[in-house]
Amino acid sequence: MQETSDQERAKHEERQAVMRQCERFLAGHGPLHLREELTALAASVTDEDEEAGPDRYGAGRLIERFEREIAGILGKEAAVFMPSGTMAQQIALRIWSERNGRRSVAFHPTCHLEIHEQKGYERLHGLHARLVGEPNRLITLDDLNAITEPLAALLLELPQREIGGQLPSWEELNAQTAWARAHGAALHMDGARLWEAAPYYERSYAEVAALFDSVYVSFYKGMGAIAGAALAGPADFIADARVWQRRHGGNLVQLFPYVLSARANFERRLPHFPTYHRRAVEISSALHGIPGVAITPDPPQTHMMHVYLRGDPDQLMDANLALARDQRVWLLPWLRPADAPGYSMFELTIGDAVKALTNEEIAGYFRRILADANGGQL
Amino acid sequence: MQETSDQERAKHEERQAVMRQCERFLAGHGPLHLREELTALAASVTDEDEEAGPDRYGAGRLIERFEREIAGILGKEAAVFMPSGTMAQQIALRIWSERNGRRSVAFHPTCHLEIHEQKGYERLHGLHARLVGEPNRLITLDDLNAITEPLAALLLELPQREIGGQLPSWEELNAQTAWARAHGAALHMDGARLWEAAPYYERSYAEVAALFDSVYVSFYKGMGAIAGAALAGPADFIADARVWQRRHGGNLVQLFPYVLSARANFERRLPHFPTYHRRAVEISSALHGIPGVAITPDPPQTHMMHVYLRGDPDQLMDANLALARDQRVWLLPWLRPADAPGYSMFELTIGDAVKALTNEEIAGYFRRILADANGGQL
Repeated sequence: MQETSDQERAKHEERQAVMRQCERFLAGHGPLHLREELTALAASVTDEDEEAGPDRYGAGRLIERFEREIAGILGKEAAVFMPSGTMAQQIALRIWSERNGRRSVAFHPTCHLEIHEQKGYERLHGLHARLVGEPNRLITLDDLNAITEPLAALLLELPQREIGGQLPSWEELNAQTAWARAHGAALHMDGARLWEAAPYYERSYAEVAALFDSVYVSFYKGMGAIAGAALAGPADFIADARVWQRRHGGNLVQLFPYVLSARANFERRLPHFPTYHRRAVEISSALHGIPGVAITPDPPQTHMMHVYLRGDPDQLMDANLALARDQRVWLLPWLRPADAPGYSMFELTIGDAVKALTNEEIAGYFRRILADANGGQL
Repeated sequence: MQETSDQERAKHEERQAVMRQCERFLAGHGPLHLREELTALAASVTDEDEEAGPDRYGAGRLIERFEREIAGILGKEAAVFMPSGTMAQQIALRIWSERNGRRSVAFHPTCHLEIHEQKGYERLHGLHARLVGEPNRLITLDDLNAITEPLAALLLELPQREIGGQLPSWEELNAQTAWARAHGAALHMDGARLWEAAPYYERSYAEVAALFDSVYVSFYKGMGAIAGAALAGPADFIADARVWQRRHGGNLVQLFPYVLSARANFERRLPHFPTYHRRAVEISSALHGIPGVAITPDPPQTHMMHVYLRGDPDQLMDANLALARDQRVWLLPWLRPADAPGYSMFELTIGDAVKALTNEEIAGYFRRILADANGGQL
């Protein structure tokens, strides 16, 4: 075991080292460099920030102004900055549960709370999950109609990350939120990638958020900040959320590195999400004619898609590594075996990094990796 | 209400502005300047850090090495870096509770969990508090002997912050920890200011920590980092703690600004805690002859003490403000009415800032503030 683990670690470190030597990247905004990031953070401090000084346990001009800005964009009365979405969403569901006296919360089987949070909702908050629909497709109104138990809240994730960032139509979304209202369930949006969903609905963030009582948004993912999240909703709800944030240990003495990073990246990247989406559509179009490649959703509805590649994950990653050494270009963020036999898959998110690559170059690199990993047989 | 609140805020902002113009400070390490802090953080990044890249969900060379360093200093098998002590301590108590099947945890009435965490231990973890002893003195063995219910854990805070940083004698500490072992209770140390307690026991951190199953330490307080904490203990306990950290929403995608800040300040300040303590003793000695001043504990046992000043908090703060405008020196971090009628109090912590002041100057400034606030009558 230990030997395998050491080998795995050595392999991982080798990959990291090659990756950090690369000059061009397909996914996201490319790797973060510590000195560069912290120097940029220092440069983003305004004279007004400096004069007001650091935040203290959530109070301070910098953090409060940013919270107001986020609340405004989402059309909510108030917002609170939190270190993580895990914290923000459990807190939201707990508050709605306390308010309507119900303990069941409904969400998609691939919801972050279900698969990435070690069942914190249950172990910390005593909430019960009612999973809705199937893992590999969006929730439908029929799925909701099949629910018989009273719900504290319905959580909808826009877009649904684990199925490649799919989004329900505006009509379907309205029907589902109307269902929840008719059944006395609070509506919470997991908007971890809400910024990325804007081009699809062609509506303001506030219009989409208006369908929900509370909204969580993230500042790292597509936005590219170091970390950080916000929870937005009615003023009394946010006041409660601040109490729960303290209980969770998330009311840090100083959060300014995260707030500065969120603010700077927010200003820089919010206008670019439609561009990321357009480029994602172009790339899916350039890739889906290549033998051994499949994409979902096709076309992408946001900045992201799931890419399926014929071949074994290790052989594909070795081919990726060979390409990286040769061309200083890094294509695959990670790979895992896909459900489809003989295929591997990864999540591709489009950000600033892709600007250094043409669609033709990208298609060519994928052809090379596939050929390498499959011994030229495709 | 709103008017009062606006007035309060204006007053607070005015004080902050004057404070930030000051050049000398009595307490702590002086105010933090955002650009300076972030620039120093960037400068602390080594080539090795840069090569390894940022941490990701708690994994990465920088964070793992620092955790090993802290575990080593505390003589424990493992340690985990966490955003806050609130998170670290609730998690420690929950794990011990799960392991021995008991739900009551015992601590001092002024324990951080009891007075600063909105009862997170109860609302998130279903733990019950058995308060031990009296708010204004240390826990004694007699207090422990009066406990009849089975305890999941006994939490001892070293030093006891809310009574001026008092510490039990080494013999008393050994007797209390032996009591807990005899009663099947796990021993958890709230070592938020453990670094500051070293000069008192004249023992290594590991020797003090060896009396406990788990230890929480902080990196901001006396250490002066931006934020951050660590929990140390047996390897299997720390593995559990990482799971609970994820449940709490404290397993952030990137923690490097806090880890870098903790590491840099740790290296810089750990050797200086005996100096801070010696200076605290000198200052208490310079102050306790002044009419209208009282100090506890006298002499201080750590870098901190509670200072009681005759006069109303607002009048004393106005006098402090006048002194600050006149001399660009800032004496009082905050003030609240003391239990003793006609007195105000504050917590004084000694750090790097005091190096710019002589004991005679400090005594002189206190005389002036007291005279101003009391109309010359002392």
